[in-house]
Amino acid sequence: MAEVARYAGVSVPTVSKVLNGREDVAAETRHHVEAALRTLGYQRRERLRSTERQTAARTVDLVVHHLGSTWTAAIIEGAEEAAHEAGLHLVVNAMLGRTRHQRAERGWLERISARGTLGVITALAHFSASQDAWFRQNNVPYVMIDPITPPPHETYSVAATNWEGARTAVDYLLSLGHRRIAIIAGKRGRHCSDVRIEGYRSAMRSARARMLSGYIRRGDFHPPGGERAMHELLDLATPPTAVFVCSDFMALGAVRAIRERGLRIPEDISIVSFDDLPEARWTVPELTTVQQPLVEMAAHAVRLLVRISRGEPPASRRTELSTTLIERATAAPPQPAP
Amino acid sequence: MAEVARYAGVSVPTVSKVLNGREDVAAETRHHVEAALRTLGYQRRERLRSTERQTAARTVDLVVHHLGSTWTAAIIEGAEEAAHEAGLHLVVNAMLGRTRHQRAERGWLERISARGTLGVITALAHFSASQDAWFRQNNVPYVMIDPITPPPHETYSVAATNWEGARTAVDYLLSLGHRRIAIIAGKRGRHCSDVRIEGYRSAMRSARARMLSGYIRRGDFHPPGGERAMHELLDLATPPTAVFVCSDFMALGAVRAIRERGLRIPEDISIVSFDDLPEARWTVPELTTVQQPLVEMAAHAVRLLVRISRGEPPASRRTELSTTLIERATAAPPQPAP
Repeated sequence: MAEVARYAGVSVPTVSKVLNGREDVAAETRHHVEAALRTLGYQRRERLRSTERQTAARTVDLVVHHLGSTWTAAIIEGAEEAAHEAGLHLVVNAMLGRTRHQRAERGWLERISARGTLGVITALAHFSASQDAWFRQNNVPYVMIDPITPPPHETYSVAATNWEGARTAVDYLLSLGHRRIAIIAGKRGRHCSDVRIEGYRSAMRSARARMLSGYIRRGDFHPPGGERAMHELLDLATPPTAVFVCSDFMALGAVRAIRERGLRIPEDISIVSFDDLPEARWTVPELTTVQQPLVEMAAHAVRLLVRISRGEPPASRRTELSTTLIERATAAPPQPAP
Repeated sequence: MAEVARYAGVSVPTVSKVLNGREDVAAETRHHVEAALRTLGYQRRERLRSTERQTAARTVDLVVHHLGSTWTAAIIEGAEEAAHEAGLHLVVNAMLGRTRHQRAERGWLERISARGTLGVITALAHFSASQDAWFRQNNVPYVMIDPITPPPHETYSVAATNWEGARTAVDYLLSLGHRRIAIIAGKRGRHCSDVRIEGYRSAMRSARARMLSGYIRRGDFHPPGGERAMHELLDLATPPTAVFVCSDFMALGAVRAIRERGLRIPEDISIVSFDDLPEARWTVPELTTVQQPLVEMAAHAVRLLVRISRGEPPASRRTELSTTLIERATAAPPQPAP
């Protein structure tokens, strides 16, 4: 009432009279008071609504590049699990539609804003300064899973121990006796791939194994790229006896290329890949691979959002969860030279 | 005011006096009127809130058995696409947690109710009379995708043309010249599997092909069940030359069993499976299979929900979307008897 009186430029008893429907108030004064009531009431309601939308939100938003892959399925599984534990619901948003053609604008920021959310998780996204500004302006916490480009220090992110995982893979091949070890990585500038190359280099240097010219090849994290890169390696004057392939998807293509040449796995060439998606167990032979804890990474991202929204943000902005080498059937000691 | 007057047992002018803060009303009467105002006002607010929760909801809920499979990934992909088209958000709920042990109660009905939803889609669920009653009481539309047990006539459901798809598979094997054709189905009582058996029987009867004793086997829609059932078939006195396996997952196991016997696919035994999940393309050889339009089924279910929530429900409650035979590498004419 004091706020309404101030806004309308009248006394508190006058506001009270208007509220009680008393007749002993001048028409103009009554008009001012009623206008003030409407304005302040409206503003408060709107303010409340906006705050309520965020704090009362019982949903967490996951934004992925596209749906339908086993990589994304693992992310959804972990995020849903952690959301359920926190009494939240997981909303799934795809950047690309079914056709896989980039849509002009899926407008997910606006739609999420209109609905309200406890926070947003992006998976395999490029860091974007404009999105970051939007999140900060709207006070929406967000966490990046396995960002394609490394985000600035202030951004929360969760990834696997990519460097360590790559070292483990190459150290394992070295321990089997391989020296001619190549790598099929992803495109230049893709953070996880760049870091895995560093892990490969480190292992090779530590073992004083020569990295022959042409031993670092690039695919695109899809089977055809892995197939092409493997053909390039097999065409070298001194082809490798073992290859660290930076994803199971690319390894599917690499296995196909090796089979097309009539070579045997692992007798003629060994492969260790990365991810341990379901695909790794369906190839023949089953892939030896470095397991990336995708389910745990997504669950961790949701738990981070909950902590941030409660005002208990952890000091550490970047979290890396450890990988595990899964020994299956594609790696063996090299055959003695004929 | 009339409603309040009726509820409080007073006249309309009396209610007006109380509302205007006039003093010429007996204390007891004022008390009655104020109580009536509170009660009716409260009820209306609650009623409004409940209705608003449903109609203003911009979310659609998908409830699946568990996350992480390629089957579920396809359902999520289609549902998200159609939700996006309708300006809605897709919430994903899993009945089973990560550990795959049935939880005592995930309480999703209560949680969805508290948040509000435009409607619910269940995938691979048993029809439950108590859930059905809950949906009707709360005026929440729901659609079942590929229900495990056939729902009553009033329930909306979307499935593939299971009978037709099975007939197509077996007709194809017959057209290649096979006569000794077996089937590996799912557990008894699982609707889609029971219907596929009927499609198999129909094709065999039409071609006057004998269904030998033991030719109808049951797995559990997982690889180990398919492997076991295939071993049983290969142990028969007259083993089949071709098998219709009712899911790609079971076919993975069946292929393994055939390989363990040292038999070749398709030279020694042909396989046609069902689903066309990504797994079908990762086996060696790639599976000839009946494609189930999972993405379209899920999109259709969301569009149904939108129509029902707008008060434009379609007359037809059950929708079946057509399957397509995908010819790959596991089916060929039978070899002439030695």
